[in-house]
Amino acid sequence: MTGNAGRGAVPRDPRGVRGDGDEEHITASVFINDDEPGLHDDYARWLERLAPHEPLAQYRHNDTGEDNGDAHLKRQVMGREVVVAVSGGKLDFGPWEQIFYGEFDGRRRKRVLVKIIGE
Amino acid sequence: MTGNAGRGAVPRDPRGVRGDGDEEHITASVFINDDEPGLHDDYARWLERLAPHEPLAQYRHNDTGEDNGDAHLKRQVMGREVVVAVSGGKLDFGPWEQIFYGEFDGRRRKRVLVKIIGE
Amino acid sequence: MTGNAGRGAVPRDPRGVRGDGDEEHITASVFINDDEPGLHDDYARWLERLAPHEPLAQYRHNDTGEDNGDAHLKRQVMGREVVVAVSGGKLDFGPWEQIFYGEFDGRRRKRVLVKIIGE
Repeated sequence: MTGNAGRGAVPRDPRGVRGDGDEEHITASVFINDDEPGLHDDYARWLERLAPHEPLAQYRHNDTGEDNGDAHLKRQVMGREVVVAVSGGKLDFGPWEQIFYGEFDGRRRKRVLVKIIGE
Repeated sequence: MTGNAGRGAVPRDPRGVRGDGDEEHITASVFINDDEPGLHDDYARWLERLAPHEPLAQYRHNDTGEDNGDAHLKRQVMGREVVVAVSGGKLDFGPWEQIFYGEFDGRRRKRVLVKIIGE
Repeated sequence: MTGNAGRGAVPRDPRGVRGDGDEEHITASVFINDDEPGLHDDYARWLERLAPHEPLAQYRHNDTGEDNGDAHLKRQVMGREVVVAVSGGKLDFGPWEQIFYGEFDGRRRKRVLVKIIGE
């Protein structure tokens, strides 16, 4: 999600502010973890094991003519939105935390919403 | 969660408002995905594969006399609460997003809490 | 998370307030469920089945010299943060809900952030 401009309002005061990013589609995720390529490869292989893309006929959702039944399941494991505290005007992350966008289907244009609220 | 009246406060101003719905029980979920019956059948079968209801003796939680050990696990996969941005006075969803209540046990009366906050 | 002091701001008014706790590390979770020891044993065994710690070589993340590839996956299943409504100045939980800290690695000191916001 690096470089995402978002559509969030600008906070008037950084104290107590909280931002969240939600992925507005149903076959993708916004999640927070480490920016380590091996780990992201592990996520992809693990999700494929938990919810294999094929055979397509294993998902009733694919009876609609779509082929992304697995992507709807993968998105539930990885989550839809994150809520991140803002302290002193900055996202209050742990040492290695970064926000990622996870795409499990890839067929459509997607948008990510960032909303910032506070006192 | 269609038709849920909730207990949320009414926002005074739609700008920057955010609402969330949380499921207040431990064997059920509130989640956001597509309103497609095949998909919901897929979720049910997939969760049963990840955390089978039987044999009951595989869960130490069921040693308490309950039989819903699996439901506590399914709820973690699907999530407890959702946080949804409100823009222009409306829930700011993606094209197909809807909020659902997922019930994995079914023994008890449940309530869903909806809280709306904003500037 | 019992006894956690947090770093949250004090709300000025309990109406409409919402608090959240997020776990600021990438191999641990904050989650809400029942305080039943058998259930927590079930979670541990279930997560080990979904994302086994060994063999270490199954995770590309472990090629970095770490051995916690599985912990990054377990954290995604259990979640990073929780958002809890505050009503009448109290965390508005369901009958059995409690907040827990789930540790899947254990190597490092961790902190949990609690942020309370409201009108």
